[in-house]
Amino acid sequence: MFGGGSYMIGMTDRDTTLRFDPRFDDAGLVTAVVTTRAGGLLMVAHMNAEAIAATQASGEATFWSRSRGRLWKKGETSGNVLRMVEMRVDCDQDALWLVVDAAGAACHTGATSCFYRRVEGDALVPIA
Amino acid sequence: MFGGGSYMIGMTDRDTTLRFDPRFDDAGLVTAVVTTRAGGLLMVAHMNAEAIAATQASGEATFWSRSRGRLWKKGETSGNVLRMVEMRVDCDQDALWLVVDAAGAACHTGATSCFYRRVEGDALVPIA
Repeated sequence: MFGGGSYMIGMTDRDTTLRFDPRFDDAGLVTAVVTTRAGGLLMVAHMNAEAIAATQASGEATFWSRSRGRLWKKGETSGNVLRMVEMRVDCDQDALWLVVDAAGAACHTGATSCFYRRVEGDALVPIA
Repeated sequence: MFGGGSYMIGMTDRDTTLRFDPRFDDAGLVTAVVTTRAGGLLMVAHMNAEAIAATQASGEATFWSRSRGRLWKKGETSGNVLRMVEMRVDCDQDALWLVVDAAGAACHTGATSCFYRRVEGDALVPIA
C-alpha cells in the first residue's frame, strides 16, 4: 500500500520520501493525534520541532501549548503521562499519529478521552 | 467520565456544555480526525461550518480543502466516500472525531490510510 506511483493526482515528494520532513504551518506546528493501542482517540494537540524532538528523546508525549506559548509535557502536573508506543506521519507530513499507553486520564476534565460527547445536530450527547 | 467539576484547572463552558459550538480558528476551521470503527486512523483534515453541515446532512464526510479553497466531499472524484457512523467533539470543541465506514482507500496515494509510514528518528519506515 506504500506509495502509489507518481501518476497519482497531487502526489508530492513528501508523500513518497522515507525522510521525516514535517510540514510545519506558519506557526511552526503540525497536528498530533493521540490514540491508544486499541485505537481509542484520546486527544488532538500540536507539536513544533522541539516537541517532536523531546517526545522522541524521552518517549513521553510532549506538545506545544498554543494557549500557554510553551513546551508542554503531557502529565507534567497531573502525572498522567502518555508513553509513546509508535509515531506515524501522514502523506503530506503535516499530521502525526502517536500511539500511546496512557497513565490515567488524557483530558484535563478528568475524562479518559477528550472526545466524551457525541454530536447530534446542534446538541452534544455524553458518551456513556 | 463526562465532565469533571468546575474546580478543574482551565475548565471552560465549552468543556461542559451540551450545545455544539465549534471553536473555529482564524481561518474558520476545526481539525477533523477520521477513523474506522475499529479505531484505525485514516486521515486528518479540516472542516468549516459549511463542511460540518454538509457532512451532517448527507452522512458522508465533507471537508474544507485548504489547498483548493473550496468544499471537498471526500470521494467526489475517486468514489471512495467516507460514510459517517458517528461524530464526536473534543473538550474545547476545536477538534472533531468522525468514525466512518470507508469505501476504498482514504488516501490520495492509494493507501488505505494516510498514515502509512512510521517515524524512526529522521527516517520513515513503510508500514507493512
